[in-house]
Amino acid sequence: MTNNKIPRAPLSVDDLGRIAASALFGEPDVRYLRMSAPILEPQIDAVLDTWYGFVASQPQLAAYFSTPGGELLPDYLAAVRVRFGQWIRDTAAANYDQGWLDYQLEIGRRHHRVGKNRTDGAKSVDHIHFRYLFALTVPIVHTLRPFLAANGASVEDVDAMQQAWLKSVLIQVTLWSHPYIREGDF
Amino acid sequence: MTNNKIPRAPLSVDDLGRIAASALFGEPDVRYLRMSAPILEPQIDAVLDTWYGFVASQPQLAAYFSTPGGELLPDYLAAVRVRFGQWIRDTAAANYDQGWLDYQLEIGRRHHRVGKNRTDGAKSVDHIHFRYLFALTVPIVHTLRPFLAANGASVEDVDAMQQAWLKSVLIQVTLWSHPYIREGDF
Repeated sequence: MTNNKIPRAPLSVDDLGRIAASALFGEPDVRYLRMSAPILEPQIDAVLDTWYGFVASQPQLAAYFSTPGGELLPDYLAAVRVRFGQWIRDTAAANYDQGWLDYQLEIGRRHHRVGKNRTDGAKSVDHIHFRYLFALTVPIVHTLRPFLAANGASVEDVDAMQQAWLKSVLIQVTLWSHPYIREGDF
Repeated sequence: MTNNKIPRAPLSVDDLGRIAASALFGEPDVRYLRMSAPILEPQIDAVLDTWYGFVASQPQLAAYFSTPGGELLPDYLAAVRVRFGQWIRDTAAANYDQGWLDYQLEIGRRHHRVGKNRTDGAKSVDHIHFRYLFALTVPIVHTLRPFLAANGASVEDVDAMQQAWLKSVLIQVTLWSHPYIREGDF
């Protein structure tokens, strides 16, 4: 998940703890995320098909996987897809250390003009606008529900897994936002 | 809700529509928000007690209603509380026009160092850090559930009202973030 070239995040695990507490994220959420890991693992391709289908259906989102002229870039979509699958595994693994935090900031840079396209040498538009980052939390977490329920977990456990995913994604997107935020405002 | 002194938002109702579509927010959500209006109206003080109780229990959040030295400011808390009650009404009313959009940007400025404390002449810290804005969506929407259920609505309707609130709050906090975001990045 991490590598040596990723800069250290300007945030500590204690900072993360205060953000998590503000989002009511606690030890039960860690357990429910990890409960979701083996349920989601064999369905990762199907989850990604659903998420990619939603993005493709929304022109304002598909634009971010396209050239400035509006041509979709299949190679870029495929390269991101591999990392997106790993992101599902990492989110469900729920291991929060400095390496995880550093990588969250790297994900943020790869959405922002400071780093977009560089990992894959893609010829896409150079920036994903902030306005859509948190909005996307909704379809991501909403469409996860049937996948979480696929193994016959109780409604209570599916609710709790979905709620833990919501909290985790909101916390992560908060971290991804770091490059977008004015100096001193984060 | 609005007044003549509030500047026009650098966003249009069409921009809002694209953010809403990305959050799966649609006409059913408008209906469910409005269904919540008469249910919440007589409970607004109790909802605010719950939310203020949560903020008070989290030192990293209570700090934003305190002096830089850490002394809670009861007059400031009380002044914000009146607007917070109106915000519940406005969120449940779900009327999205340019005036609503302009006021969302004003709410953002009142969280950010460009405008915090000015409305009430408060002697509080001068900025609410971005890192907690979206995290707070979780306790806001989570603690709303028993209030939404208080009138005996079906579990399906309570679920749908709560989901509409989640989407609306995420969209609103996205708009509130505008003053935090670097030029051109929003």
